[in-house]
Amino acid sequence: MKKVLVMHGPNLNLLGEREPGIYGTDTFESVNEEIKAAAKQLGFECEVFQSNSEGALIDKLHESRLDCAGVVLNAGAYTHYSYAIRDAIAAIKIPVVEVHISNVHSRDEFRSKSVISPVCAGVIAGFGKNSYILGLRALKDITEAQG
Amino acid sequence: MKKVLVMHGPNLNLLGEREPGIYGTDTFESVNEEIKAAAKQLGFECEVFQSNSEGALIDKLHESRLDCAGVVLNAGAYTHYSYAIRDAIAAIKIPVVEVHISNVHSRDEFRSKSVISPVCAGVIAGFGKNSYILGLRALKDITEAQG
Amino acid sequence: MKKVLVMHGPNLNLLGEREPGIYGTDTFESVNEEIKAAAKQLGFECEVFQSNSEGALIDKLHESRLDCAGVVLNAGAYTHYSYAIRDAIAAIKIPVVEVHISNVHSRDEFRSKSVISPVCAGVIAGFGKNSYILGLRALKDITEAQG
Amino acid sequence: MKKVLVMHGPNLNLLGEREPGIYGTDTFESVNEEIKAAAKQLGFECEVFQSNSEGALIDKLHESRLDCAGVVLNAGAYTHYSYAIRDAIAAIKIPVVEVHISNVHSRDEFRSKSVISPVCAGVIAGFGKNSYILGLRALKDITEAQG
Amino acid sequence: MKKVLVMHGPNLNLLGEREPGIYGTDTFESVNEEIKAAAKQLGFECEVFQSNSEGALIDKLHESRLDCAGVVLNAGAYTHYSYAIRDAIAAIKIPVVEVHISNVHSRDEFRSKSVISPVCAGVIAGFGKNSYILGLRALKDITEAQG
Amino acid sequence: MKKVLVMHGPNLNLLGEREPGIYGTDTFESVNEEIKAAAKQLGFECEVFQSNSEGALIDKLHESRLDCAGVVLNAGAYTHYSYAIRDAIAAIKIPVVEVHISNVHSRDEFRSKSVISPVCAGVIAGFGKNSYILGLRALKDITEAQG
Amino acid sequence: MKKVLVMHGPNLNLLGEREPGIYGTDTFESVNEEIKAAAKQLGFECEVFQSNSEGALIDKLHESRLDCAGVVLNAGAYTHYSYAIRDAIAAIKIPVVEVHISNVHSRDEFRSKSVISPVCAGVIAGFGKNSYILGLRALKDITEAQG
Amino acid sequence: MKKVLVMHGPNLNLLGEREPGIYGTDTFESVNEEIKAAAKQLGFECEVFQSNSEGALIDKLHESRLDCAGVVLNAGAYTHYSYAIRDAIAAIKIPVVEVHISNVHSRDEFRSKSVISPVCAGVIAGFGKNSYILGLRALKDITEAQG
Amino acid sequence: MKKVLVMHGPNLNLLGEREPGIYGTDTFESVNEEIKAAAKQLGFECEVFQSNSEGALIDKLHESRLDCAGVVLNAGAYTHYSYAIRDAIAAIKIPVVEVHISNVHSRDEFRSKSVISPVCAGVIAGFGKNSYILGLRALKDITEAQG
Amino acid sequence: MKKVLVMHGPNLNLLGEREPGIYGTDTFESVNEEIKAAAKQLGFECEVFQSNSEGALIDKLHESRLDCAGVVLNAGAYTHYSYAIRDAIAAIKIPVVEVHISNVHSRDEFRSKSVISPVCAGVIAGFGKNSYILGLRALKDITEAQG
Amino acid sequence: MKKVLVMHGPNLNLLGEREPGIYGTDTFESVNEEIKAAAKQLGFECEVFQSNSEGALIDKLHESRLDCAGVVLNAGAYTHYSYAIRDAIAAIKIPVVEVHISNVHSRDEFRSKSVISPVCAGVIAGFGKNSYILGLRALKDITEAQG
Amino acid sequence: MKKVLVMHGPNLNLLGEREPGIYGTDTFESVNEEIKAAAKQLGFECEVFQSNSEGALIDKLHESRLDCAGVVLNAGAYTHYSYAIRDAIAAIKIPVVEVHISNVHSRDEFRSKSVISPVCAGVIAGFGKNSYILGLRALKDITEAQG
Repeated sequence: MKKVLVMHGPNLNLLGEREPGIYGTDTFESVNEEIKAAAKQLGFECEVFQSNSEGALIDKLHESRLDCAGVVLNAGAYTHYSYAIRDAIAAIKIPVVEVHISNVHSRDEFRSKSVISPVCAGVIAGFGKNSYILGLRALKDITEAQG
Repeated sequence: MKKVLVMHGPNLNLLGEREPGIYGTDTFESVNEEIKAAAKQLGFECEVFQSNSEGALIDKLHESRLDCAGVVLNAGAYTHYSYAIRDAIAAIKIPVVEVHISNVHSRDEFRSKSVISPVCAGVIAGFGKNSYILGLRALKDITEAQG
Repeated sequence: MKKVLVMHGPNLNLLGEREPGIYGTDTFESVNEEIKAAAKQLGFECEVFQSNSEGALIDKLHESRLDCAGVVLNAGAYTHYSYAIRDAIAAIKIPVVEVHISNVHSRDEFRSKSVISPVCAGVIAGFGKNSYILGLRALKDITEAQG
Repeated sequence: MKKVLVMHGPNLNLLGEREPGIYGTDTFESVNEEIKAAAKQLGFECEVFQSNSEGALIDKLHESRLDCAGVVLNAGAYTHYSYAIRDAIAAIKIPVVEVHISNVHSRDEFRSKSVISPVCAGVIAGFGKNSYILGLRALKDITEAQG
Repeated sequence: MKKVLVMHGPNLNLLGEREPGIYGTDTFESVNEEIKAAAKQLGFECEVFQSNSEGALIDKLHESRLDCAGVVLNAGAYTHYSYAIRDAIAAIKIPVVEVHISNVHSRDEFRSKSVISPVCAGVIAGFGKNSYILGLRALKDITEAQG
Repeated sequence: MKKVLVMHGPNLNLLGEREPGIYGTDTFESVNEEIKAAAKQLGFECEVFQSNSEGALIDKLHESRLDCAGVVLNAGAYTHYSYAIRDAIAAIKIPVVEVHISNVHSRDEFRSKSVISPVCAGVIAGFGKNSYILGLRALKDITEAQG
Repeated sequence: MKKVLVMHGPNLNLLGEREPGIYGTDTFESVNEEIKAAAKQLGFECEVFQSNSEGALIDKLHESRLDCAGVVLNAGAYTHYSYAIRDAIAAIKIPVVEVHISNVHSRDEFRSKSVISPVCAGVIAGFGKNSYILGLRALKDITEAQG
Repeated sequence: MKKVLVMHGPNLNLLGEREPGIYGTDTFESVNEEIKAAAKQLGFECEVFQSNSEGALIDKLHESRLDCAGVVLNAGAYTHYSYAIRDAIAAIKIPVVEVHISNVHSRDEFRSKSVISPVCAGVIAGFGKNSYILGLRALKDITEAQG
Repeated sequence: MKKVLVMHGPNLNLLGEREPGIYGTDTFESVNEEIKAAAKQLGFECEVFQSNSEGALIDKLHESRLDCAGVVLNAGAYTHYSYAIRDAIAAIKIPVVEVHISNVHSRDEFRSKSVISPVCAGVIAGFGKNSYILGLRALKDITEAQG
Repeated sequence: MKKVLVMHGPNLNLLGEREPGIYGTDTFESVNEEIKAAAKQLGFECEVFQSNSEGALIDKLHESRLDCAGVVLNAGAYTHYSYAIRDAIAAIKIPVVEVHISNVHSRDEFRSKSVISPVCAGVIAGFGKNSYILGLRALKDITEAQG
Repeated sequence: MKKVLVMHGPNLNLLGEREPGIYGTDTFESVNEEIKAAAKQLGFECEVFQSNSEGALIDKLHESRLDCAGVVLNAGAYTHYSYAIRDAIAAIKIPVVEVHISNVHSRDEFRSKSVISPVCAGVIAGFGKNSYILGLRALKDITEAQG
Repeated sequence: MKKVLVMHGPNLNLLGEREPGIYGTDTFESVNEEIKAAAKQLGFECEVFQSNSEGALIDKLHESRLDCAGVVLNAGAYTHYSYAIRDAIAAIKIPVVEVHISNVHSRDEFRSKSVISPVCAGVIAGFGKNSYILGLRALKDITEAQG
């Protein structure tokens, strides 16, 4: 059974409480339960990780290259300026799927620019918590295509 | 049974032949077969439409508002400058999911800007022909959430 | 009796239905009736034309040069990027008055730039369906001044 | 009988003498006579005001909110940088119609940007002295629509 | 005998009538006659095509890949923003030579940017109707070099 | 007893009436009473001055250098473009504290740029009428530090 | 007794030693003593927190939402690029007052842009260590206004 | 004897007192005496005018067209944004020479842009009070060339 | 027999050796032989000149105005910044055709801007050594049109 | 014996494994051995530190000011946006030499901008692992010059 | 008797022949005669130097530092991009006055930027050949002020 | 014994005299002596070349490809705009190390951009005359690595 990492960046631990009009009312815990259930159904062992620290996210990405088949990453606001996370994604050889809960393109100007997209396998944005599930499915397709 | 429209913009009729390193070797016809099969499995009646003409794409979007539950749209290069298609999406009230075969963010600079993203429900890019299938799934989630 | 052309660009056929908070609730047909009535009162024979296709709009502009004294043009979203329509306006020798239903300057950033204004006789924006009527009056003044 | 204010900004007092190729040969006085006559015909009492001073224009706008149904404003060059006049327009609650004698979009680059358009009811530009008359008509429509 | 396509974009059908100071006084028909004669002399069968529609130009480019050795393309104003035509040129494998009647670099700022140049074989601009003839010669050299 | 000047720029005379959602419902007069009372409590004699005229504001700044220990300045919209007021502040040697009623950074883009900040002692923005009182306190600290 | 958090970002632990011409010669410890004393006088319990780590600052902001009435935040250089801290401020519902020791607008160009200002209650900059005290007073006013 | 106007813009009345490192220590009065003496020597009757008000400067420029052979203008900070003064210069037909005391190009970025230069006869900057005298000489040459 | 000048700018003396993937493997000498032969066939006497020095290229352009009917100029990298060469082209009255061996638009960003195009008769780029020959033909057409 | 700090920023711990075409195949450990050996030869005691965390890098820079004569810093991707690290370098008084393994100027556009260069003693980039050794030599020269 | 250098940059040797509408019809030789006569009258020995070569202009500037009291420099088109000439001016310690024959601000956009102005003593532009004479007078004032 | 070229661009011949605060007080001759001595110690035969002429620098770079193992190049101000020198570096196949005496990133904005860096082997800046010596060492490493 292949392992995948679902990684949440800064402020996503406040899901359900933070700006519910944008991010929904499901709690962080319940969203993670749904993610894990969906991963299981797709035949993945799934680890969920959250940190507000750029360095901790990079450390975890490095670690994932040793035992994961891929990563579903919501890098939160780091999406828009963390070239260090970008370099970490480029450095590890497993596919990383970028996801966003909200449609980042219909919000603040600065959110329409992602510095990590060019090194990710693909991007999924705007489908609420389902963005994570679609990300897992995309990862499924990619890992199957790789044999 | 709800109907959905899968719409291809300019040059996508050359799929399989056009820059296969970027767009894959599956032919336009075979990709459409896969799309239709996946739609059926999700419980959708699916119409596929392609045109190289901006006006024809707008006409079709208008038409779709009368009998479709949603649209999966790969607007091709019009993605980057057609404010007219953007207005058409905003004018119809059904959800439109923007999809791209390639990861537009890792190619030419001009491809990283989409003028239609702000009015689409969400965006999926980079997963080859699977981007369409993921788009249909996303549409499934949206229409189910709407009851 | 001089003939004038009133030309609507993309998505304006959805008037009354499309974003009524911005474009009003009068239907496309009723607005055209008012336009025709006003034109008649000003002593103009008036043809109304709408298309979502950039090419068809250009073809019609070319055609108008043969039998019209002027054009009232709402180019819709093409206003913001169609240098081809701009060239068509410059190529024909009859006056073209640019009109907009909404105040384009108080909406999205991209709507505040018109690529056709520099080659139009003048611009009228923000007065709802009355923008067309004011456009016809402006055309009246221009054609009278030309004798 | 409703009162309206027609307000001229800097350098417009030199009308007829100043760059006649752009602004026409009618004198400031004669243009004002035509404006007043047109206003009367539309059922408006009309005050005409001109100043080269930004502060005096703001003072007059403030004053107009007490006894006018609307303003037709040609802010001259202040159009392009006076955020103070913009704030004055936003502060008073009566409609302000922005007008320009020349087609500002076919002249110097800096003239194509108006900082006051976003807070005006609408914009009319390029019809010579008739721009004022069309502005009065637009004001007529607006005040009638308000009942 | 190899076939080549000479393709005219929007507004070029008005040649001879449209801004003759820039585009010359030869009619569209007579220019096409000269083009065909020159092509014949170079040993080419030559089809001439004009359309004001972006979609029709793309359709024709696609079609040309099946029976032409190359294309001489004057994309008119589409040159400056049609990424869809750019993609069509990149998608077909035959050489496309970009030509312009006027020196686009000595006119409006927006005309100095071509979005299609990067995918064309080469560019020729500023020599009036001779730009087409030089384009045919260039195509001759290219096809001969390819054997 | 040291004298200070509290200076209001354009449109601030309409306080209480103008966009109350942004500027509050207290009238200009009552705000000035509160300012004067607070100044008195801090041991300052306080003059309040308002003008819509850039020139009058500069004249007053010049005058203040002769008998004031400092200035609390809300330059209104002039904040964003009046290099002349900037030069006046730099020319007089007494400290000037820039204040704003609203948080200028969460409003229109153009309001986030102040051309006078670089020559002011400091900036206070976003605390409603209390911005003036905090400005007076800041001035108190500065003048005390100067002995 | 309400609790408030005073939070110092990167490099502020070197106060007194670091570029004393800009930041003053008072040590970090003595400044914190003054802050605490002032807070006490205003009736606040005051916690002081400093970290050079973006993640730790976000963690602390999250924590503060549970037991603090507001935050006075000097985010140091993170002010200019940490969209993650911006999101944390927007996510918690208590007021955050942005403060700076120096007048950031009279220094390097990059310091004049704050990405956190739009989501803060207000901004105070340029009054040395007194910026913190003025921030506490502003917080006092805000919490009192909220009842 | 021809009359010329020497016009000083905002803050120049503080000459001698204002930033003497940049503007010199000669008082406004003594500089004007030197200017008048130099004008007399060149055979000019010379009026000196100063105002901090943009409107007053425009009024004076208008007035000068009636009795002056030319203007030497130091528009102070208005140089960098007053399109209204620019229009006034373009409107009057007498030559205006733009002068600056300091070398505006070696100071703040914003000072290197003059919006009035394109409509002035010429520009002289950086020679202290002598810039005015050189401006008068230039005017002498111009008026002599005009006969 | 009319004389023409073919002028090569910096680094073109290394043709055949320099980046052969871009510039081809023909030597500088052999290319010049082909150019001269082609010129002869067109009825031109042809001088070839190469220099790495901007000043020497300008001197030669000046000289050419005395005895040449036109110039074919490949200005190499000077194309992108030499306003001095631009002025030289504008100063002489004979036609100058700008040519480039490679398609400058499909290479580095900076190569897509030519500062000399606006003052040249026309531009030819991307056809290898044939660009020079096409340039000579263009010159032939121009000189014949001039009689 | 003077102590120096050699500091590696994010992702450099993956040296030898990460993009070896750019960063080489030597492992992080072996590179550090070479660095230490070279430092010893230059008479330096050398500490090597790596972290993926911006905060930890700042903490270490602060610490180094107490016992090091200088720092050789490869800040990795933080080079391009960490104003917080920039401030840390400016805050400590020992010299910091910026080094990069690859030639950052021949890669992605964003890598050509360093926000830390202006406060570093100097910059060395593009010489592979030797960049560190050259950095140590540069530090040697600097500390010797300081006596 | 002090010596001064009057230096002409590229293309100025064609004075009288080159674009006479802009640069006048006086020949280069006659202008130099007038310059020398004026210099003599001001008590200067005057050398005139012209070159189209950037390097030669720099060499001459270096040389002038040994025997000249100052330089009047018309750098022609090099004005707009030659940072090398800028450095030469900064390197020599004698005053350099920048002059231009035409009003560079009323011509092409690129001519309104001078890279040498910040290091020159002052700038004089727009007075035809008299710009040189005014430059000599300015130099007279500067050298006299230096004693 | 391998030969290397050390090349100085414009104004570097004034070393020791020119802005000694930035460039040091060592004369050009003594710096060259140190460079030659260091080269000898590294086992290089060393030629030193200086010119103020862009063309002469390019000629010398071309020449060096015939007998040198590498070049240490301080291109002076040409660094910031000479695409011609950039092309020369790219055209020759020997390694070129870019060096600067001062830290170009802590000076004028324009100095932080190098157009030659992308084609150089590496960059060294900010170490005074030692930058040249470090450049020679870097060249040593590169040539040794090449065997």
